[in-house]
Amino acid sequence: MTYCVGILLDAGIVFASDSRTNAGVDQVSNYSKMRIFERPGDRFITILSSGNLSLTQNAINMLEQKGRHHEDAKFWGLQSMFEVANLLGENLREVLKRDGPYLQQNNIDASASFIVGGQIGDEAMRMFLVYAAGNFIEATPETPFFQIGETKYGKPIIDRVIKPESTLMEAVKCTLVSFDSTMRSNVSVGLPIDLVWYERATLRVGLRRRITESDPYFSMIHMQWGEGLRKVFSLLPDPTWDSPEVLSLQQQAQIFK
Amino acid sequence: MTYCVGILLDAGIVFASDSRTNAGVDQVSNYSKMRIFERPGDRFITILSSGNLSLTQNAINMLEQKGRHHEDAKFWGLQSMFEVANLLGENLREVLKRDGPYLQQNNIDASASFIVGGQIGDEAMRMFLVYAAGNFIEATPETPFFQIGETKYGKPIIDRVIKPESTLMEAVKCTLVSFDSTMRSNVSVGLPIDLVWYERATLRVGLRRRITESDPYFSMIHMQWGEGLRKVFSLLPDPTWDSPEVLSLQQQAQIFK
Repeated sequence: MTYCVGILLDAGIVFASDSRTNAGVDQVSNYSKMRIFERPGDRFITILSSGNLSLTQNAINMLEQKGRHHEDAKFWGLQSMFEVANLLGENLREVLKRDGPYLQQNNIDASASFIVGGQIGDEAMRMFLVYAAGNFIEATPETPFFQIGETKYGKPIIDRVIKPESTLMEAVKCTLVSFDSTMRSNVSVGLPIDLVWYERATLRVGLRRRITESDPYFSMIHMQWGEGLRKVFSLLPDPTWDSPEVLSLQQQAQIFK
Repeated sequence: MTYCVGILLDAGIVFASDSRTNAGVDQVSNYSKMRIFERPGDRFITILSSGNLSLTQNAINMLEQKGRHHEDAKFWGLQSMFEVANLLGENLREVLKRDGPYLQQNNIDASASFIVGGQIGDEAMRMFLVYAAGNFIEATPETPFFQIGETKYGKPIIDRVIKPESTLMEAVKCTLVSFDSTMRSNVSVGLPIDLVWYERATLRVGLRRRITESDPYFSMIHMQWGEGLRKVFSLLPDPTWDSPEVLSLQQQAQIFK
């Protein structure tokens, strides 16, 4: 399984991905699911991927092929993040056209999705979610974050604290809490976490961190968040409802049908 | 969608279910997903259901048919919760055998699952999760709770606070927080919540409550939990990592591949 998050703020973008890949529980390995394309002063692009690794790796490799030479207009000449998302979707379609039928023959899951975001030149920062069909949507102030992979366990905390005006530091903390919740409930999402933040208009990588099991900050977040939650929970008052209402079977039948 | 939880404690059992049923977002209605069978002093049984409503209603109706007359040994004579779970699984298989092929012809989802728990006579309290195939598993001290339906958003808080030694009051609070998180992230899970608690060895309904939008206790839990979470979050210290590490593309390629 995979868990990736991208959060688009007024101040910048935070990207994070786990590194666990598994084909059955007896075949677990580590792959980074984050790719960064940077030409300082010109553009900063990050892609997070989820789904069938052969599909996502191939689609990104095709981008890399196109971007191998910095003068190559096919990739480095793209003038908008919209074009980048479009190209990534096209690549995914190409890979699926080639490999999809064979995966299907072997009953292998052919899902794939990407979060791609960044900034090119004078254009605003943008972030897109590319689906398996190659179509894509863009993050907006109403929905300033995307998740792919095992998204649900870690969603409530992002729903609660992230707004476009949040700081990059807040988004980093929220992302780590979100990963902590996810890893607690699904062992197939695992450390290390690749974390990158981008500051608006800098056109280069900001902070970057690979968070391993020995990272003291992440351990502290894990401890303090767990303790804090239990404390808030213990402070919730008991129900003030009236004494137990014991109903006859007949009354139940009326109420519960 | 549906969300149901059953928590088996040393002190008793807490059951809760939402009431929203939908067949597409334009056809939403309320059905209780909780059925209680009680013969005070003899037995207390609660069933929570998730999945295709026609399947779960029919399987439970077959139980009710069998249990219509209190002297009927088919249902009220069962001597163990294990037999109840078994009978419910059998009923589900019977309904699926009758309706399954027709649902399939119409591409209608034929999923169904139940949480069934309670106590009969001198037997210990027991709780089971019955799957669509009619097979079932039992809750144990290591995994003292079951969820069915939209389970993920509300799982982290239960994972964090529930132990077999938790009090019924703690389990009720935890259940409401879990529902709050779920409803915040998935609008297809909705109020009212049917909530029942059973105290060990009482062989009758304990507290029972239908929690609607106007329930002041639930509103308070909703507010206080949200504020508490944001407070704990705001107290998390900022990362202590070194200054931004900006790596060259080549270095990136080594690290992130």
